[in-house]
Amino acid sequence: MSKIASTFSRLVRFVPKSNPAKVLVGEPVDPQIDVGLAIYQGKEVSVRPFSGTSVLNPGQKTESTETISRILSPLSQTEVGSIRCIGLNYVSHAAEMKLSIPDVPTLFIKPSTSLSDPWPAPTVLPKLTQTDNTGDYESEMVIVIGRDAKDVSEADALDYVLGYTAANDVSSRTSQMNQSQWCFSKGFDTACPIGPVIVSAAQFPDASKFQIRGLKNGKVLQECPLTDLIFNVPQLVSFLSQGTTLPAGTIILTGTPPGVGAAKNPKEFLKAGDEFAVELLPHVGTLITKMEHQT
Amino acid sequence: MSKIASTFSRLVRFVPKSNPAKVLVGEPVDPQIDVGLAIYQGKEVSVRPFSGTSVLNPGQKTESTETISRILSPLSQTEVGSIRCIGLNYVSHAAEMKLSIPDVPTLFIKPSTSLSDPWPAPTVLPKLTQTDNTGDYESEMVIVIGRDAKDVSEADALDYVLGYTAANDVSSRTSQMNQSQWCFSKGFDTACPIGPVIVSAAQFPDASKFQIRGLKNGKVLQECPLTDLIFNVPQLVSFLSQGTTLPAGTIILTGTPPGVGAAKNPKEFLKAGDEFAVELLPHVGTLITKMEHQT
Repeated sequence: MSKIASTFSRLVRFVPKSNPAKVLVGEPVDPQIDVGLAIYQGKEVSVRPFSGTSVLNPGQKTESTETISRILSPLSQTEVGSIRCIGLNYVSHAAEMKLSIPDVPTLFIKPSTSLSDPWPAPTVLPKLTQTDNTGDYESEMVIVIGRDAKDVSEADALDYVLGYTAANDVSSRTSQMNQSQWCFSKGFDTACPIGPVIVSAAQFPDASKFQIRGLKNGKVLQECPLTDLIFNVPQLVSFLSQGTTLPAGTIILTGTPPGVGAAKNPKEFLKAGDEFAVELLPHVGTLITKMEHQT
Repeated sequence: MSKIASTFSRLVRFVPKSNPAKVLVGEPVDPQIDVGLAIYQGKEVSVRPFSGTSVLNPGQKTESTETISRILSPLSQTEVGSIRCIGLNYVSHAAEMKLSIPDVPTLFIKPSTSLSDPWPAPTVLPKLTQTDNTGDYESEMVIVIGRDAKDVSEADALDYVLGYTAANDVSSRTSQMNQSQWCFSKGFDTACPIGPVIVSAAQFPDASKFQIRGLKNGKVLQECPLTDLIFNVPQLVSFLSQGTTLPAGTIILTGTPPGVGAAKNPKEFLKAGDEFAVELLPHVGTLITKMEHQT
């Protein structure tokens, strides 16, 4: 059970219809609603705003109600800092890629500039990825760190977890495979949409109970229970915090299940106009973005 | 020639003796002084402060003079964002490691939390590195980006460079070699000291004229002209900015010359009490840190 006092079950960061210059955080009024899917479908989504403007410091519930104009990434680029990503973390994805199970988590980092918002904000495939024609999706569960963590034991790790959200670890496979490092091929602007909401770890303490799916234009391409993780949430937080401060707001993308485009036969890459949905259930909902070509 | 209007030749960020709660940026009064070496030797260093507090926005020269109490990294953790590092970028270092010359730069990222100050701030070898006993040094020249850069051509790249400084890309070799990624093994707190000053690119337009040396406890272990770079400054800035915003303040560590501890015979790793100096001449000076063990 997370020791972070949680005043919310699910929190969404958004621009309200009442004031396009405002950023609010708040709890959806309907506890069951999939905020990402509802906004995509053009539905009204009512939210009870908190007094603060950051999920790290949301303040208290207010009595008012607002309607979402635009969902934002649950944390801002400034709040997430350097984005931690785990390279190979599903037993069945390792099998699919014909890779052996690693002894320790493989860490790479996306720059904070790659962070982006859910639909209607686009995922922009950069010119390089268009030349390659190897833009790919990776549906991922995300750990959100709620207070500064350093040298944390596995036993204490959940005390530092604020909650969970979803991400698409958008990748340019030719760049990735032609180089030994992944930071460039996965670090483009908008290559890290996250959302649509954060579910509190205090409310949903066992991340292995999530189910994740990845859908391109409505077709299911990835589908896996989180019990398939090679390294679970306490192991990841403990490992990554060795000698290293993970500031509050750090997000950890925990790897992708089988079914990425590069592993399909024939390979199935992203092109302009494709809509990709990462669905993390229960509680988190659907993170949708539409692919655009950089012009 | 950099198009960034430069009001300084060399800038140091520091805490003045007059007020330990203040952070200032300013130009050393003596244009020849090696600020890092002078502070290490306990000498008085006089600085003409600017009106601002950031090298990105230094403001104007003032008429006052201050004495340095403590040198800070030229940019703060918040200003540098995700730290770009190039993996293999000296012809002679590739030969030493028996690696072929890469076709494109190899990028990895250190988290901003690894940034630290020059002497007397220490480089702390984390417990994991002590267990390994494979802490290592990498003397590097650093490019400082002065305005947001994206999809920049090689021809225009220097227009985005504010200046140059030095860094030690401190590494934990066992972690590095046991994993395919470098972000973890080079991302520990204090694993990225930078400084002691920034030399303006407008004043020193040709980075290939630098000479870099790495000295452990006064003994020269690395020594190389920057003409040995595989990818030069315009090539690096242009490559890294493809589809990716490099915000003002981004620093790019440009790789290390031959002579790292892991390549010595016998291998020569860092231990507590060692003092390591990265010397980048002319103008930048000496970046010194003392190794400590994390307790």
